[in-house]
Amino acid sequence: MKVYLSGEIHTDWRERIVAGAEGLDVALTGPVTDHGASDDCGVAILGAESDKYWHDHKGAMVNAIRTRNGIEGADLVVVRFGEKYRQWNAAFDAGYAAALGKPIIVLSMPEHQHALKEVHAAALAVAEEPEQVVQILRYVQTGALPG
Amino acid sequence: MKVYLSGEIHTDWRERIVAGAEGLDVALTGPVTDHGASDDCGVAILGAESDKYWHDHKGAMVNAIRTRNGIEGADLVVVRFGEKYRQWNAAFDAGYAAALGKPIIVLSMPEHQHALKEVHAAALAVAEEPEQVVQILRYVQTGALPG
Amino acid sequence: MKVYLSGEIHTDWRERIVAGAEGLDVALTGPVTDHGASDDCGVAILGAESDKYWHDHKGAMVNAIRTRNGIEGADLVVVRFGEKYRQWNAAFDAGYAAALGKPIIVLSMPEHQHALKEVHAAALAVAEEPEQVVQILRYVQTGALPG
Amino acid sequence: MKVYLSGEIHTDWRERIVAGAEGLDVALTGPVTDHGASDDCGVAILGAESDKYWHDHKGAMVNAIRTRNGIEGADLVVVRFGEKYRQWNAAFDAGYAAALGKPIIVLSMPEHQHALKEVHAAALAVAEEPEQVVQILRYVQTGALPG
Amino acid sequence: MKVYLSGEIHTDWRERIVAGAEGLDVALTGPVTDHGASDDCGVAILGAESDKYWHDHKGAMVNAIRTRNGIEGADLVVVRFGEKYRQWNAAFDAGYAAALGKPIIVLSMPEHQHALKEVHAAALAVAEEPEQVVQILRYVQTGALPG
Amino acid sequence: MKVYLSGEIHTDWRERIVAGAEGLDVALTGPVTDHGASDDCGVAILGAESDKYWHDHKGAMVNAIRTRNGIEGADLVVVRFGEKYRQWNAAFDAGYAAALGKPIIVLSMPEHQHALKEVHAAALAVAEEPEQVVQILRYVQTGALPG
Amino acid sequence: MKVYLSGEIHTDWRERIVAGAEGLDVALTGPVTDHGASDDCGVAILGAESDKYWHDHKGAMVNAIRTRNGIEGADLVVVRFGEKYRQWNAAFDAGYAAALGKPIIVLSMPEHQHALKEVHAAALAVAEEPEQVVQILRYVQTGALPG
Amino acid sequence: MKVYLSGEIHTDWRERIVAGAEGLDVALTGPVTDHGASDDCGVAILGAESDKYWHDHKGAMVNAIRTRNGIEGADLVVVRFGEKYRQWNAAFDAGYAAALGKPIIVLSMPEHQHALKEVHAAALAVAEEPEQVVQILRYVQTGALPG
Repeated sequence: MKVYLSGEIHTDWRERIVAGAEGLDVALTGPVTDHGASDDCGVAILGAESDKYWHDHKGAMVNAIRTRNGIEGADLVVVRFGEKYRQWNAAFDAGYAAALGKPIIVLSMPEHQHALKEVHAAALAVAEEPEQVVQILRYVQTGALPG
Repeated sequence: MKVYLSGEIHTDWRERIVAGAEGLDVALTGPVTDHGASDDCGVAILGAESDKYWHDHKGAMVNAIRTRNGIEGADLVVVRFGEKYRQWNAAFDAGYAAALGKPIIVLSMPEHQHALKEVHAAALAVAEEPEQVVQILRYVQTGALPG
Repeated sequence: MKVYLSGEIHTDWRERIVAGAEGLDVALTGPVTDHGASDDCGVAILGAESDKYWHDHKGAMVNAIRTRNGIEGADLVVVRFGEKYRQWNAAFDAGYAAALGKPIIVLSMPEHQHALKEVHAAALAVAEEPEQVVQILRYVQTGALPG
Repeated sequence: MKVYLSGEIHTDWRERIVAGAEGLDVALTGPVTDHGASDDCGVAILGAESDKYWHDHKGAMVNAIRTRNGIEGADLVVVRFGEKYRQWNAAFDAGYAAALGKPIIVLSMPEHQHALKEVHAAALAVAEEPEQVVQILRYVQTGALPG
Repeated sequence: MKVYLSGEIHTDWRERIVAGAEGLDVALTGPVTDHGASDDCGVAILGAESDKYWHDHKGAMVNAIRTRNGIEGADLVVVRFGEKYRQWNAAFDAGYAAALGKPIIVLSMPEHQHALKEVHAAALAVAEEPEQVVQILRYVQTGALPG
Repeated sequence: MKVYLSGEIHTDWRERIVAGAEGLDVALTGPVTDHGASDDCGVAILGAESDKYWHDHKGAMVNAIRTRNGIEGADLVVVRFGEKYRQWNAAFDAGYAAALGKPIIVLSMPEHQHALKEVHAAALAVAEEPEQVVQILRYVQTGALPG
Repeated sequence: MKVYLSGEIHTDWRERIVAGAEGLDVALTGPVTDHGASDDCGVAILGAESDKYWHDHKGAMVNAIRTRNGIEGADLVVVRFGEKYRQWNAAFDAGYAAALGKPIIVLSMPEHQHALKEVHAAALAVAEEPEQVVQILRYVQTGALPG
Repeated sequence: MKVYLSGEIHTDWRERIVAGAEGLDVALTGPVTDHGASDDCGVAILGAESDKYWHDHKGAMVNAIRTRNGIEGADLVVVRFGEKYRQWNAAFDAGYAAALGKPIIVLSMPEHQHALKEVHAAALAVAEEPEQVVQILRYVQTGALPG
């Protein structure tokens, strides 16, 4: 089962899923999570831009090679909304996955509930902790519930 | 040409596009823009919920009947990001439209440039004023440029 | 807006939706609701069958010309589960609509809630009365809520 | 050949197919067949619900992660209708598979023939015994007929 | 309802359907039925070919502009197999329509039953007379059965 | 490269392709080529039919499980028209493959050129001998031409 | 019938098709053919760019709103290769149309035959004069051949 | 990651990508790059043609078996425009890949910037040197930037 882990890149939620999913038959992928590399990949490879817009644009396009392949090839997309930043890319990925008919798990915080209601409405599960995602993966693969 | 106007519902940007597009062959649609109705439509029609999550969920699902049809039937999707709120639904719509291969115009503010770079990367045009969207509609339909 | 009304054919729920939706821009379609004609259309047109299985099969195939076109052309599919019979064709239509990504409203009775949970999970709204479907159609088209 | 075994979970029909298909190049999958786990998976992982509707809803959504992937990835879908219960999920799966163009084998009882005629009309084979499904798998893979 | 009438061009079956369907809301289309024009259209417009293969090829390609649009735009495809010739184009059209998921009615003669079994297996109805096709069109549109 | 070999089952053309393709990275599949088994598979597994039409129908449906999977999974479809019989199933397969956008090679005899012109027009190559198919497979995989 | 006229914008070939097609039921569309407007539309509406690459990029993106809608909505795409310039956009449009399965007519000059062979291989007709395109449109709509 | 290398066949750009990508998990494919074989494959295998147009046509069709499979199976398409020739096949491939939604990297020279603007507008990256393509592949796979 191919699972794409989209969204927030500042906490260890991906690592917690990777660790928890050990022993399951899942292939976990996601975006480049090195913030600096992700921001600068376009100009670092394809040449500098004086205008910040095009600097960012080039990077976003190069990252899209990875993220679109990741989402399109996934059997399940997990989208994490964290505490900080606007995280429009996470919501964009959720919309992208929804239009492709991919099963979606949203990982979000209670205080974002109202703001995320349209995104939640496209999800098959809404969780708060990475360990719940692991439990879903285990249940979906083996039928085993926690506890 | 069917144009879906997604996103921010607190300023008059839709009205400015409607007014400017007079005389063009465009059918402009969008979500329900009455904030209260949009929030409460689920429970008002289908019955109250004690839990806020399900209250919101029911509403978001009913609204999705309109928004998904709107985006899927559109020849062009305009997504507006305004000053306030988290606007994850706007980014979600952009992702949804992108995955369907719809041409997208993003209407956003300079201060959001970096945060929107992944959304911008999926757009065919990024504008700041509704009048620019009108100019694009006019150009695309008639070949006439402003001025 | 094209709305396909699938399912139960023994009560007046379609008539109530048709009456309530007067004035809205909706085109309401559905299966042939004359039970006898629906059962016998195959053999009446294409020749008798001695075996009941093929008698039914021929009829179901001819009806499928209408129902598949109806569902595939719809912007919204309403599926009604009534009191009696097994109604597997209603559930089949719901699954068919779901796989095509059609917005679905399920019209069902509280006592069927558990048995319909997989079908409900594919719906954007679950209602008990045809008038609620009308209210959704009105809201989705005009933004107006009841009351 | 990937075969998804949908429907009834109270008899040993899946085991009989698994046993019979030994030696064939088939990968057999299906839903979680532990009735209790299947009913409670949503709340067990994502938190309790006071309302039975949402309790069931959460579970149905989590199960959908497995069942939709199973059907969408299958080369052949077998749908079994048993003696008891309403089995709307089985008919839903059949409709879902039909809309995706998947070859379908229905495994059903003679007394359900009339009620299942629309589902049968979407199938490439209608059998009564699991061993017939095995014979079809063997024939389709090797060309060998029984006896 | 758009109906594409494919196949045999030497008898009056299309005229009988056109006449019978008067008053129904159907748009009937089909290939060019002037045998000579159909054979020579390629070279008549695009220049002569010394080689019979390319003469025929050019014509078949030009005709494909019409036939593919006709089949792809149809809500129902009727394929007629007549008494004479090999009629591989009729079977090709049936396969083309089947892969697109179009409802198919085959109009054929009893003596071709065995040879057409794979084509029949892809049809929702197999008729012998054009009037039966009209009866199906009438039933599918109005629910009325003959007699 | 997955190659589906459709059509005529009375000569050794498949064996000649299999032999010639030795050493190439191709997986060759096709229908069941035992004529008797192919005709009787439906009734042998699912029960006898007194009516020849339904006898044939059941068999054609069971064979369709194999043939549709074969064509849909193929990277290339070879369709062979032989000397005898009407071979409508071969033309049907060609139409089916064409609508799916599969590359098609037609293997046919000069005397059928005119009758096959619509089928040829959908092919990327028209050959007369199985060895030419092998040469195409070799060229497409390795770039090597014969001689 | 919707026909998109892609390619060369310096001669009167579109006008000749428009004039010739008078009386036929065709809707002819195409790109903006004012070379200056086409080059500058991006910066004229969305703001100047100091870098020529982004100047051109913005224009190409705005034009894509029109051209992609035009090709995707077309029943037939005509691609004209003229005498001058590199015309990569014409070949790009041809590839785009081919991947969507659109019928294509290429309008080209004999001296470009070898260089266009891959593009020609995706076309249903290759013509040299706009009047031939008109003759094809007339034949496809009415069955009438020239002369 | 499957990468299709389309376009120019006269310089060593493919070899430079192959060499640079050593150690990455990429499968690099492309067209037959032996110019003579590519031109003559059709007639060499399927028989000579007296008319140059059909000579070329047969070859282009046989090559299309390889190129279409290559593009359709790719996760990423690189299209190289070199110094010489009209290279319409490269632009055609870019359009084909774009319509399929494939991520595209264009490898081109500064002097072609204006002429390629529509093709560039469909790309996620525009590079000048094969080594930049390698750097993108490495970044997309490993997150590592050059230097």
